[in-house]
Amino acid sequence: MIICFRRMGQLFEADHVKKKVFVTGAAGFIGSNLVDRLLGDHEVVGLDNLVTGSEAFLDDALKNPNFKLIRADVLDPEALKAAMAGSQFVYHLCANADVRFGPDQPGKDLQQNTIATFNVLEAMRANDIKKIVFSSTGSIYGEATVIPTPEDAPFPIQTSLYGASKLACEGMIAAYCESFDFQAWIFRFVSILGERYTHGHVFDFYKRLIEDPSQLTVLGDGHQRKSYLYIQDCINAIFCAVSRADDRVNIFNLGTDEFVEVRDSIGWITEHLGLHPVIHFGTEQRGWIGDNPFIFLDTKKIRALGWRSELTIKQGIIQTLDYLQKNQSLLTRKV
Amino acid sequence: MIICFRRMGQLFEADHVKKKVFVTGAAGFIGSNLVDRLLGDHEVVGLDNLVTGSEAFLDDALKNPNFKLIRADVLDPEALKAAMAGSQFVYHLCANADVRFGPDQPGKDLQQNTIATFNVLEAMRANDIKKIVFSSTGSIYGEATVIPTPEDAPFPIQTSLYGASKLACEGMIAAYCESFDFQAWIFRFVSILGERYTHGHVFDFYKRLIEDPSQLTVLGDGHQRKSYLYIQDCINAIFCAVSRADDRVNIFNLGTDEFVEVRDSIGWITEHLGLHPVIHFGTEQRGWIGDNPFIFLDTKKIRALGWRSELTIKQGIIQTLDYLQKNQSLLTRKV
Repeated sequence: MIICFRRMGQLFEADHVKKKVFVTGAAGFIGSNLVDRLLGDHEVVGLDNLVTGSEAFLDDALKNPNFKLIRADVLDPEALKAAMAGSQFVYHLCANADVRFGPDQPGKDLQQNTIATFNVLEAMRANDIKKIVFSSTGSIYGEATVIPTPEDAPFPIQTSLYGASKLACEGMIAAYCESFDFQAWIFRFVSILGERYTHGHVFDFYKRLIEDPSQLTVLGDGHQRKSYLYIQDCINAIFCAVSRADDRVNIFNLGTDEFVEVRDSIGWITEHLGLHPVIHFGTEQRGWIGDNPFIFLDTKKIRALGWRSELTIKQGIIQTLDYLQKNQSLLTRKV
Repeated sequence: MIICFRRMGQLFEADHVKKKVFVTGAAGFIGSNLVDRLLGDHEVVGLDNLVTGSEAFLDDALKNPNFKLIRADVLDPEALKAAMAGSQFVYHLCANADVRFGPDQPGKDLQQNTIATFNVLEAMRANDIKKIVFSSTGSIYGEATVIPTPEDAPFPIQTSLYGASKLACEGMIAAYCESFDFQAWIFRFVSILGERYTHGHVFDFYKRLIEDPSQLTVLGDGHQRKSYLYIQDCINAIFCAVSRADDRVNIFNLGTDEFVEVRDSIGWITEHLGLHPVIHFGTEQRGWIGDNPFIFLDTKKIRALGWRSELTIKQGIIQTLDYLQKNQSLLTRKV
């Protein structure tokens, strides 16, 4: 069996014939890393409205003649259709990725995830593009009754507007596969960590510890068990699945083969920073409405294709922290 | 155990304190029947844009001082909010209910089901209404891998834009329950039959046999196995669940405890009409894109609450045919 490690990434990318690939959310955390990797073998058109994405993440890509960045919004169907012309494959990554603030703006997930994805599918149809990679989420399982949670877990009940919107997207994409002969690779991510990460618990904790190294307030009791995956491992898994899975609708959980408690993570972060803050934990099992106290995905399906993660969760967290230490301007970025 | 038969329907309706109930799709097939039943105990405000619904279905209701019909569209958020003022309970039934023509207008299910349901939820929030009944569909299971299919079947892959849109609605409703303390009763229907039915195979076959009694062309090979439920049995089940199930999110399959082949149904219809047409079957297992060759829902959960269907599928089909024979003007109605 060939193992899909990053150092062998070229193998997977070489499996594709060189093509023109379209990436939404190209200036985002995952999108920009993906663009860099795709440019090894493909021509890439990236689309981003640069609201939460950062053009600086594409500094290298923009020097590459095979890359073109289009500043446009997926909520503008005509701009999207025009931007997609000539591409053969779509990676649809742009999204409202914030699971926590859903209840403050209930329409945001509907607009930026559900309706945006419909626009992407329609733009593909208009351009006769039939292959799509979609970034979904482990949040789609709600509070799973089976842990580790496999792709065919019992029909879940949604607990967040974010998860509900990704569920809506998955459903539409699968229906387009059936109705219009599309082919899809849908990835249900745990939280992704690594270079260009600008959002999530390592970011929040580090930012607050910079502001006040003497204490840290944690949402929830800190016993929430969570899973994380390092960005390059995530991209390896995507390339692995795209080159090796050939069903009409290919759905994969992506995560490491472990989970950690929020308290573990805080320990590693403070140790790495050499800090000894007083930690104030909450009393609730859940940090916020829709917070899932235990996320652990069964990744047998992607591992059966030969993929393995290179970094443990702890290594991913430390690597992310290193990156944030070297890129402190990200901490004060206004989004 | 008390059995939830129609003749005992008053029992369930009496379980509720009299309240002001809001019904979307009030002039539709299911909506208008529901309005008539609700008016036995409640004040009812019905909303309908009267595009596919028929005001004539509300002839009786409109004579009742406890009923008010508002002609408005759920896609008009302000009109919806205003119409809902003062209600305590929402039955959200309006929808694009046509599973077959999804691919011709892919945006229709998104607009009329997903976005419409979001508008209903937001109008409820604006009016501090927290209880919702929602009409979902057995199509949500796609081509189920477990038959009879229970509510917690393995996470399905959508095969129709209609099913995908109902999945999106279910997800949003559940997320509102978690985020805003709503309570929901979600019903996954098989095809519903009975008085005021204007849509589906009995309607199509009867209409075509009126036009040409000598022959009938059937989409698919006629071996599709389908389930149907009589409208009053459906309403009994809804009332039974609303009065007896008290989880935050209550999901129930609704159907009879049997299925039939399309060929059986054609035999009963032609026999009842005294016709002997030549039947032209197709060669495909599926009648159209997204057609599900075998729908049979596990209804143990609703039956555990004491509900039973009164009519068999055959009785439901014959009763529907009787109704259509007495209301032939429906056959030529332009929608």
